Amino acid sequence: MSLLQKTCAKIAIPDAALLALAEERLDSLTKPPGSLGRLEELAKNIVAMTGKLKPRIKHKAIFTLAADHGVAEEGVSAFPQEVTAQMVLNFLRKGAAINVLAKHAGARVIVVDMGVAADVRLKNAKKLDYRKVRIGPGTRNFTREPAMSKSDAVKAIEAGIGVFREEQKKGMDICGTGEMGIANTTASSAITACILRKDAREVTGRGTGVDEAGLDRKIAAIEKGLRLHSPDPKDPVDVLAKVGGFEIAGLAGIILAASAARVPVVIDGFISGAAALIAYTLEPKTRHYMIAAHASVEKGQASILQHMKLEPLLNLNLRLGEGTGACLGMGLAEAAVKILNEMATFKSAKVSTKLHKK
Amino acid sequence: MSLLQKTCAKIAIPDAALLALAEERLDSLTKPPGSLGRLEELAKNIVAMTGKLKPRIKHKAIFTLAADHGVAEEGVSAFPQEVTAQMVLNFLRKGAAINVLAKHAGARVIVVDMGVAADVRLKNAKKLDYRKVRIGPGTRNFTREPAMSKSDAVKAIEAGIGVFREEQKKGMDICGTGEMGIANTTASSAITACILRKDAREVTGRGTGVDEAGLDRKIAAIEKGLRLHSPDPKDPVDVLAKVGGFEIAGLAGIILAASAARVPVVIDGFISGAAALIAYTLEPKTRHYMIAAHASVEKGQASILQHMKLEPLLNLNLRLGEGTGACLGMGLAEAAVKILNEMATFKSAKVSTKLHKK
Repeated sequence: MSLLQKTCAKIAIPDAALLALAEERLDSLTKPPGSLGRLEELAKNIVAMTGKLKPRIKHKAIFTLAADHGVAEEGVSAFPQEVTAQMVLNFLRKGAAINVLAKHAGARVIVVDMGVAADVRLKNAKKLDYRKVRIGPGTRNFTREPAMSKSDAVKAIEAGIGVFREEQKKGMDICGTGEMGIANTTASSAITACILRKDAREVTGRGTGVDEAGLDRKIAAIEKGLRLHSPDPKDPVDVLAKVGGFEIAGLAGIILAASAARVPVVIDGFISGAAALIAYTLEPKTRHYMIAAHASVEKGQASILQHMKLEPLLNLNLRLGEGTGACLGMGLAEAAVKILNEMATFKSAKVSTKLHKK
Repeated sequence: MSLLQKTCAKIAIPDAALLALAEERLDSLTKPPGSLGRLEELAKNIVAMTGKLKPRIKHKAIFTLAADHGVAEEGVSAFPQEVTAQMVLNFLRKGAAINVLAKHAGARVIVVDMGVAADVRLKNAKKLDYRKVRIGPGTRNFTREPAMSKSDAVKAIEAGIGVFREEQKKGMDICGTGEMGIANTTASSAITACILRKDAREVTGRGTGVDEAGLDRKIAAIEKGLRLHSPDPKDPVDVLAKVGGFEIAGLAGIILAASAARVPVVIDGFISGAAALIAYTLEPKTRHYMIAAHASVEKGQASILQHMKLEPLLNLNLRLGEGTGACLGMGLAEAAVKILNEMATFKSAKVSTKLHKK
């Protein structure tokens, strides 16, 4: 069995009995039963995911995977391709939004070069949470040829699995997904349109902020790519190979590996959502380990979450990516777990319970 | 001039020019302009509130005010009245949800006994963030007589102002509101129905979880109180005196004092919302200093926020109070300010800007 197959085979449905035990514990705490709403649901789900009645959230990590996209040539982004490499350097120098929000959440950021066009070199890279598993110098332009080979798609997913497993050794109680890659909303919309069998226009937004003409070019490029290659919606590796991206494949690997390791994985926005859709199509049980951080401005994301039956925690009109929304969602997940672990019970605090039990 | 009048007179509309400067700064940071959505709006508003282009959020405090309500006699709550005092002790022993979530947000909790029926005594109270400014041993049952005198209503508001000003001396960059008081959703619904001229049924929910019969008793009590006393919707002190509560009046004072001191104040759920409505009716400029933390399950809150034109940050089906939602909102406010203060600019990080400027 390949690493990908082995990882999928290890993913199990969480134990439902733990949900009931977690609910019992939550109802014994000094608050009206259920009054912390979605925080309580989140706490219960994390108990079920981790298999621990008192899960610990200490080691937190955001995986920010970067890669370039050949389809950028089609004028589908508001920013030039060189920005991908420039932003990777910005991540490593801790100047980006993801650095600020990850620090706020107490999470480390693991930056992974999955295939940035310009080879990023940094003197002190070894001291940083930085990895290079370059599948190639960006994908090919999928309006003309497949983005990558099927074997490179598998290689990229397995690279994600490998990165997760390496990082898990340092401690990993929860993780989040993030990315950087000029034109990667185009690849994500193509993946979403294909797997969910939707029109490109229904699942394509403005990314970093293209104008009307840019949006039309984007939709045309997606339609052209899907028409040219006819990826098989039931074969996520085929979809990745034909219209995907290295960082999207890598993130699918991260999600699969986290699910196999019973580590809750906070899904950021649209591009992370497309990676989650790949992971889910490969192995539907992954959804039990996913926490949807927020409702993105990118309209394709809502269809993905609906398909996987996940409800986003936040709705803050975010459309940045990098893992920024995942950091905010992770903060809520940690709060939920602390409620479960740190509150007094009615009994221990000598507080009277309800007059009329439900 | 009274302390209340002086405080209201000090509240100014924030400088709009600062909003533009904050936006300029945000657009210079390494992210697509506006891509952090409501976090960016929040950052701009905090700049305007504080009058500082680089506001600091270091000292954070949640004010949790407690009091009892005579109307509890009418069987309007799922919990017995003794729970108010028991929960105050739980707050002081750090076992409640507010303690856990405030710690998560890095905020101190200031517990204030504004008039709990059972006099709470604690040996080491002086070492704690605990204050007693008891206006009386709970309000009177407003279905029979006014909840308090008009002079006690003013005294309670001014006590809130006093507590804020004392606490501000220890450092206060942002604060949040919270409360505890069995039957205080009944008082809050009565205030909301009166000031917003709505039917009691439209703005009354299940509080800590009353059943259908309890909800009917609650609505009947509110209707009876409003019919009996006919509070003047334009005179918030009259409304407080006739159907309010000591902790609600105190929180209105906190909000007025925070606004006068240009300290952003995160408004928790429905009861805090009723206090905000009192403060807003006394001085509409207070709304510029408010951050609405979350959309509560208690249905009256939506009408209040709509009236004050505030959009809640979170929607997590919370209905606990204490200031729990305010803690989560405060976390987002801090994240927003960090984005403004800590990110690199396109220039400093040498990242290319957009191809086509908007």
